[in-house]
This record gives sequence, C-alpha cells and structure tokens, in this order.
Amino acid sequence: MRDAYHEELGSIGDGLVEMARLAGSAIGRATTAVLDADLKSAESVTEADRKIDDLQHDLENRAITLLARQQPVATDLRIVVTSLRMSADLERSGDLAQHVAKLARLRFPERAVPHDLHATILEMGRLAQRLMARAAEVLVTKDVDLALRLEEDDDEMDLLHRTLFTHLMDDRWKHGIETAVDVTLLGRYYERYADHAVSVAKRVVYLVTGEHADELQQDVQPVTGPKGA
Amino acid sequence: MRDAYHEELGSIGDGLVEMARLAGSAIGRATTAVLDADLKSAESVTEADRKIDDLQHDLENRAITLLARQQPVATDLRIVVTSLRMSADLERSGDLAQHVAKLARLRFPERAVPHDLHATILEMGRLAQRLMARAAEVLVTKDVDLALRLEEDDDEMDLLHRTLFTHLMDDRWKHGIETAVDVTLLGRYYERYADHAVSVAKRVVYLVTGEHADELQQDVQPVTGPKGA
Repeated sequence: MRDAYHEELGSIGDGLVEMARLAGSAIGRATTAVLDADLKSAESVTEADRKIDDLQHDLENRAITLLARQQPVATDLRIVVTSLRMSADLERSGDLAQHVAKLARLRFPERAVPHDLHATILEMGRLAQRLMARAAEVLVTKDVDLALRLEEDDDEMDLLHRTLFTHLMDDRWKHGIETAVDVTLLGRYYERYADHAVSVAKRVVYLVTGEHADELQQDVQPVTGPKGA
Repeated sequence: MRDAYHEELGSIGDGLVEMARLAGSAIGRATTAVLDADLKSAESVTEADRKIDDLQHDLENRAITLLARQQPVATDLRIVVTSLRMSADLERSGDLAQHVAKLARLRFPERAVPHDLHATILEMGRLAQRLMARAAEVLVTKDVDLALRLEEDDDEMDLLHRTLFTHLMDDRWKHGIETAVDVTLLGRYYERYADHAVSVAKRVVYLVTGEHADELQQDVQPVTGPKGA
C-alpha cells in the first residue's frame, strides 16, 4: 500500500509542476497578446487555462481519493492538503493570464498598452513568467533558498507596479481614461499572479521546514513596502 | 468517536459562519469608510480582517486534526475538504474588504469616490454585504434554493460594475486619472468579493446535491455576460 501511496503522491506533485509550467508559459503568451494585439497568442492562453483547469480537477479528485484510501497522517497529510491549496493558487494564476489575454481581445485591433508603457508591461510579464518558472523549480527540487529568492523577484514586481502608477498619475498622461483603466487592471493582474507564484513557493518552504506556518495558512497579501533580502 | 467527530465537524461549520458574518460586516464598514472618508470604520475593517485570518488559521488546524484523527471518507471527507476551500474564499473576502478600507485611508481626508458615483458604490457595498449574509445563511440552512438565488444578486453586481465602467468611459468624466484608477480598483474588489460569496454558496450546493462538480472544483470565474434566473 505504501508504494501505491507514494506513487499517487508523486503524481499529484507532477500535476502541480505541470500546472505551474502551463501557467508560466500562459502569462508569457498573454503578455505578447496584450502588447502586440496578437490574437493567436490570446487564443493559446485560453487553451492553456482550460488545460490548467482540467489538471486541477484531476489533481483534486486524486487528492481526495488518496485521503480516503490511504488516510495519511502527520507530514503526509499536510502534503496532500497543501497540494490542494497550491493547485488553487495555480488555477487562479491561469485565470489571471486569461484576464490579460482577454484585454488584448477586447481592444483588438488596437493595442491595450500605450507605447511608453510597453517596456514596463513587458518586464512585468517576463518577471511573472520567471516567478512561476522558479515556483515550478521549487516544486521539483524543494530548494528552500530558491524559494526564498522568489520574494526578491516579488519586490521587483512591486517596484514595476509602482512605476506603472507613477506613469498613470503623471500630469502628462495623455492616453485617456480607457487606457488608464486597462493599465490599472493589467497591473493588478500581474501583481496577483506574482502573489500566487510566491504563495506556491512559500507553501513548499513550509512543508520542508515546518516554519512560517502563520504566513502559510493564508493567501499571500499584496506587498506594501520593500522587504529585506 | 463518532460523536466527537460530529462535534468537531460542527465547530468547523460554526467557524465558517462566523468568518462569513465578519466578512459581511467588514465590507459594509469598508464601504462607509471609502464613501465618507471615515477612518474609524476603516480601522474596524482591519480588526475584522485580523479576526477572520485567525479564524481561518484555527479552522484549518482543526480540519487537519480531524482528517488525521477521524480519517473520514466519502461525504464526510468532501465536507472537510470543501470547508477548507470555503475558508480560503472567506479569508480572501476579508482581504478585499481591507483593500477597500485601505483606499479610504490612502485618500484621507479626501474621499476616494466622487459624488456622482457615490450611489453606485454604495449599492455595490450593500449588495456585497447582502451576498455574504446570504452565503452565511446558506452555510447554516443548507438551503439550495437560496444558494441559487445568490447568482441573481451576482448578476446585479455585474450590472453595477458595468454602470461604473460606463461612467468612467464617458467623455464627460472630469475627476482625473487618480480617481479613475481608484474607482477601477474598487469595482474589481467588489466584483471579486461577490465571486467569493457566490463560490461559498455554490460549494454548499455541491455538498448537498453532489451536482455541478465541474464548476465547483475551481474558483468561480468573473461573470462576463448576463445569466438567466
């Protein structure tokens, strides 16, 4: 029974890694979609989001079956319950990539992002993708140091988010209200996406070290100030 | 053991109801805070959010202890796992109320919401509070009809959200970019809050009827069009 159990637990872990990889690639393509008004990329994000949802569905069913049949306790039980939470983070990340892609579709054939914010949004997209790639790596390697480094990336995301707001609030803003609304929502989507990637990594740290339980019991809050390394 | 089990399960249910009540009252006071630049109300939302976080922490620990000690299967197992998901919805609702309250603080002594949008935001706040009150009632009564009626309230929220956007996009908008950004984020917070309340109700429906498993495996998506009653 123990072997079947570890096989099943391993397949839940594989599912999480696969979800993270799909979510990472989805936010990259969503960023292309919204920056280049590229409907093909937008369409591929929708497909990825659907796959992520299916994976989550499978993963949850397998987790519940495992709980019922194997009745794990202690650490093993925490792994299964935490996997359910991580799958919710990853499912939501897919939704957020989809929200970015939807904006591309909504404004097509125009571009949602004005030229002078192109670089900032591009960087937010790259950073979001890197955060999720690292979260996937943390899921595979259980590397606590790498997991903690995600917070630095998240600080960088906050910085980019503030840059976005500085642009928006500048008296010289000339792109009108609609674009301001679009850019505000985009900023929010990337920020939340990053929060979910960090949340996945933190949950792995908790499983490995048993520390920071308080922080890990709830979703990661939006960061409101700089944090130390 | 069965009695201790049902007592523990009941106390998890009570915790969810308490979280929903706190979240409902928090969004009401957050709305007052943001409409009237009322810092006392904002402060009380922060306290409520902290209480909600503590309740979630307790609830999750109790759920995990229950899984380990009682090893429930079938329906009982689904109830515990679904309770964990509902507690995540409710914890996030508290965060969103807190985001609304933070905006009040950020703009104080000014008001974040211009006069001509006062009625719309007030209505969104009332609706959000009503949705959560109904979600709490659904948790207590397991009333499937009432749960399904939440979707109608959610349709109303979407309508208010569209009203907000219509105002924003109107050429006569005269409140500047900062206010447009604030109102955009407020709209998003209320919309997500409503999604979480609906999600809680839907999860109860799933537990009671076993139906709509697909929809209930994942977080409720933002509604993009009108739905029939």
